[in-house]
Amino acid sequence: MPKADIHIFAIKGIPEIQPHDDFGAIIMECMRQVGLRARESDVVVIAQKIVSKAEGRIVRLDSIEPSARACEWALQYRKDSRVVELVLREAVRIVRMERGVLIVETRHGFVCANAGVDVSNTSAGTATLLPEDPDRSAERLRMQLTQTWGVPIGVIISDTFGRPWREGLVNVAIGVSGIAPLADYRGQPDSVGRALQATVIAVADELACAAGLVMGKTNRTPVVLVRGFSSARREGTGHDLLRCADQDLFR
Amino acid sequence: MPKADIHIFAIKGIPEIQPHDDFGAIIMECMRQVGLRARESDVVVIAQKIVSKAEGRIVRLDSIEPSARACEWALQYRKDSRVVELVLREAVRIVRMERGVLIVETRHGFVCANAGVDVSNTSAGTATLLPEDPDRSAERLRMQLTQTWGVPIGVIISDTFGRPWREGLVNVAIGVSGIAPLADYRGQPDSVGRALQATVIAVADELACAAGLVMGKTNRTPVVLVRGFSSARREGTGHDLLRCADQDLFR
Repeated sequence: MPKADIHIFAIKGIPEIQPHDDFGAIIMECMRQVGLRARESDVVVIAQKIVSKAEGRIVRLDSIEPSARACEWALQYRKDSRVVELVLREAVRIVRMERGVLIVETRHGFVCANAGVDVSNTSAGTATLLPEDPDRSAERLRMQLTQTWGVPIGVIISDTFGRPWREGLVNVAIGVSGIAPLADYRGQPDSVGRALQATVIAVADELACAAGLVMGKTNRTPVVLVRGFSSARREGTGHDLLRCADQDLFR
Repeated sequence: MPKADIHIFAIKGIPEIQPHDDFGAIIMECMRQVGLRARESDVVVIAQKIVSKAEGRIVRLDSIEPSARACEWALQYRKDSRVVELVLREAVRIVRMERGVLIVETRHGFVCANAGVDVSNTSAGTATLLPEDPDRSAERLRMQLTQTWGVPIGVIISDTFGRPWREGLVNVAIGVSGIAPLADYRGQPDSVGRALQATVIAVADELACAAGLVMGKTNRTPVVLVRGFSSARREGTGHDLLRCADQDLFR
């Protein structure tokens, strides 16, 4: 059998993460236990949820005093008014607030449902928020892993987002370090020799999706290693994936 | 080294596809030559472009008489009026037509830029259209491959689409057969035992993205095999990934 071009490894055995856990050390230990050694250009993809937990981005819902607006909307659509309040606090812009759907632009610049505020896979009575700065979280983890492993790698922090026009959520990259998130083919010749016009591929999102195939949502596989993706460039952040509001036709 | 959970193989050696080519036979021959034997639950992902070519969905631009509307818009944004005309003919709804961007709903129900009309990787003076019915194309190919290989597999026909709010294109599934395109976790317990509320993952799109990592846009790798993704269900089509217009907040 020929060698695969890309291998995707679910990193098994990651425990429930607590605030202030050193999850870099935990990831390295879990990989060591299964005999998986990092190689140059490996990309480690980590679900946002455990990054948020390690960084203490957990809110007790009984500490939240919902505003009148949050209460009204929550009542209308049978939501938890404290969760709605958290979403509104995380938002810098309401993109859609209708039919029980609340799509906002977060302080980071992500446009997503509920500002990434999430009550699944977290203790009862609590919600997790997105990391304060997912690019910085990715960068910090990349430095730690690279230092120990001695090879340059990439790190992606991922979350599952919905999309307009299409059903279902897909994994996307919300924090990126050590890998160029966009592969720009503009000007390169296509297969018949003409310059490609508008082809920039969001490879960090495609890597997040590839990892999403083994992450699941119920089986605690928040860390995935993708091996074999070669990227000519290593610079860039997840911020590069965000379209500026003034370039966007849908907010 | 532990075995990877998912392996992604670029199928090398696919020649330039011509109308009426039996690309099922071509794929099987290319796999045979590299010693890759299909296994149960393998997913073959095929770039739309070669399906369109095999199905003769190629238009000579000099056969197109652009309408006044196409000419006006093309002039304003320095586009080819014949390509604009083709896009308008393929569209059942204009979602955005401004700043040189033409986002439409196609007859199939896809919302995408330029209705999938594409002048890259095709002979000078021609454009390719999306397959007439990508689900049927996927189903036909799946039947052919399954019959020869003797194992149930999945087939995805993919194209690269842009997204609101985020930069870059990603691969998406436009035709699906033999694999459930959506994995529905609603009601299943999360890692702390509570029922997940809103978690439906578009796994066919994530598979398309994973394949996209090795497809590239310039290096003629239009066929990719993804091995190791386990899906409990095999039913469904790419149509299941399309949000109904009346459920959609962005058209």
